[in-house]
Amino acid sequence: MFKTVEWKNNRVVMIDQRLLPEKEIYRSYARYEDVAGAIKDMVVRGAPAIGVAAAMGAALGASAVKAKDLKGFKKEFARIAKTLASTRPTAINLFWAIERMKGVVEENGDLSVERLKKRLVDEARTIHREDIEINRLMGRHGGRLLKDGSTVLTHCNAGALATAGYGTALGVIRGAIEAGKRISVFADETRPFLQGARLTAWELKKDKIDVTLITDNMAGYMMKKGLIDAVVVGADRIASNGDTANKIGTYSVAILARVHSIPFYVAAPLSTIDMKIKDGDGIPIEERDTREVTHMKGRMIAPKGVKVRNPAFDVTPNRLVSAIITEKGVVKPPYRRALTRLFA
Amino acid sequence: MFKTVEWKNNRVVMIDQRLLPEKEIYRSYARYEDVAGAIKDMVVRGAPAIGVAAAMGAALGASAVKAKDLKGFKKEFARIAKTLASTRPTAINLFWAIERMKGVVEENGDLSVERLKKRLVDEARTIHREDIEINRLMGRHGGRLLKDGSTVLTHCNAGALATAGYGTALGVIRGAIEAGKRISVFADETRPFLQGARLTAWELKKDKIDVTLITDNMAGYMMKKGLIDAVVVGADRIASNGDTANKIGTYSVAILARVHSIPFYVAAPLSTIDMKIKDGDGIPIEERDTREVTHMKGRMIAPKGVKVRNPAFDVTPNRLVSAIITEKGVVKPPYRRALTRLFA
Repeated sequence: MFKTVEWKNNRVVMIDQRLLPEKEIYRSYARYEDVAGAIKDMVVRGAPAIGVAAAMGAALGASAVKAKDLKGFKKEFARIAKTLASTRPTAINLFWAIERMKGVVEENGDLSVERLKKRLVDEARTIHREDIEINRLMGRHGGRLLKDGSTVLTHCNAGALATAGYGTALGVIRGAIEAGKRISVFADETRPFLQGARLTAWELKKDKIDVTLITDNMAGYMMKKGLIDAVVVGADRIASNGDTANKIGTYSVAILARVHSIPFYVAAPLSTIDMKIKDGDGIPIEERDTREVTHMKGRMIAPKGVKVRNPAFDVTPNRLVSAIITEKGVVKPPYRRALTRLFA
Repeated sequence: MFKTVEWKNNRVVMIDQRLLPEKEIYRSYARYEDVAGAIKDMVVRGAPAIGVAAAMGAALGASAVKAKDLKGFKKEFARIAKTLASTRPTAINLFWAIERMKGVVEENGDLSVERLKKRLVDEARTIHREDIEINRLMGRHGGRLLKDGSTVLTHCNAGALATAGYGTALGVIRGAIEAGKRISVFADETRPFLQGARLTAWELKKDKIDVTLITDNMAGYMMKKGLIDAVVVGADRIASNGDTANKIGTYSVAILARVHSIPFYVAAPLSTIDMKIKDGDGIPIEERDTREVTHMKGRMIAPKGVKVRNPAFDVTPNRLVSAIITEKGVVKPPYRRALTRLFA
């Protein structure tokens, strides 16, 4: 099996997701600035994986700090954290992971700088390990929602490639299968970055899970034909009222699911929930380079100079979400109350 | 301006739509079998353009018939018609055009075979000319439905490239603009064949009509943001109750439009309406080669051997259609009665 992101010989090693499924190439980063670049350029993507990569990037940056005194170290570390935080705006896990690393610095003022550097590496590796455990818990809780013999539609990639391993949405599917259920999957290709075609189809096939690839605009057709029993997606940020930011197109899938009376589930760890935000309007939506839409594998697929919009995410309002699957259990509406209780 | 399909020096000349927008190449066909192949391979596509191409293909085939007597000619012509009719199953205009050509043979039993061949060429050219006139009429009628300053979403390409010229859905937009209104367009890229990105964006840009390209899964986001005032699409076949088969993804767009209280218009000539079919369940849906989904410009974008579905069309139920724009005027529900009246 592949490793999405890993701490290895004091480097951060990541599978280059831009090249999948054609090439399985691992990149090794020795500088935190390069980890930041890899997050920005989507070598690594998926909210939890971005969080893990940022934590490891922070550990990498910390290890290279020259300052010998805590004050100097803190100043340098703040700069490192700022660089890593400025890579992508929507996934809250990025900021969550950086805050957790900052917390280690704050809480360990009594340690020497050298010991503190080691603590930060340990913390990044702990975040990595915990992420897999959390996904397995989500898989166990969420797997119960899927009936034996059912077909699940998923959008984008919320799998092992989007996390430290196992996956959020795909973790729920894996959880159901591990519980002995037969599950088939429809994967939306997820334009423009094709996470569904390139990543979800690839990792499910590798896992011998039955997967059928469709273009995004076929989801409604398949639902109307009665071929889809449930939708499970991941999340990049969930507001305190349950409004969910996820890959562009998720909102459309949620509407289609509602119209066809198909349950729509969001699987995400607590680190994806932003209790500081009242609702989805407060979630910043990243607009990415138009070249992602106009070019494919370097070849132009649209007329030169055409105007393009490329929002990378959209917000699904809480009323379209049947349940949120977390490591602490499955949460149902009303979400504000239920999510507050999770953090209590 | 480009010519989609043309009768020129006893050949059928078509712009190769598979190569747009990168290359503007015209193909010249001397044999009806090659015209059939061009329809199948989507050198030409779009229901009305397919109809025109098939009529010209029939004329081309007829011209080459060796038989000197009417009986022998008719036998050969039936074979030609059958080959052309077997190219694509969904667009009714194909069968409509072939039936019209057959009618010329049936109604002119008194002509010599040589005169009959000329009549068939004339008929094909008439169908071509009429198609443009019909589109202009639709543009005039339908243009009235669009408000000055509005933004229209369209799916696939129902433009000059999908017809003999001017277009059905894009004809409505052109009609509104010719009536002095300012109209902006959002074009869905329309996976897998990318008719929106490659063709609609290209022909609107060429016409200096304001167009913004989005991926199919961004339509819901744009609607939620209040950026879309109306949807106008073409059709491949309309059943007698108004159920409309059109490019895959149209059904999803229609649902999104309804949920966001945005009018959803279908623009199609009478030749697209199949009064013999009770409802959308009777419309055959073509499933095309999976390579259209898994490959882009010859490069693989999905894992080898992955299962794929590739329905080329879907059916939008009449309840989601705000109005059908035809050359005889704008038709509103209840459609069975209204469409019957159109043909009276």
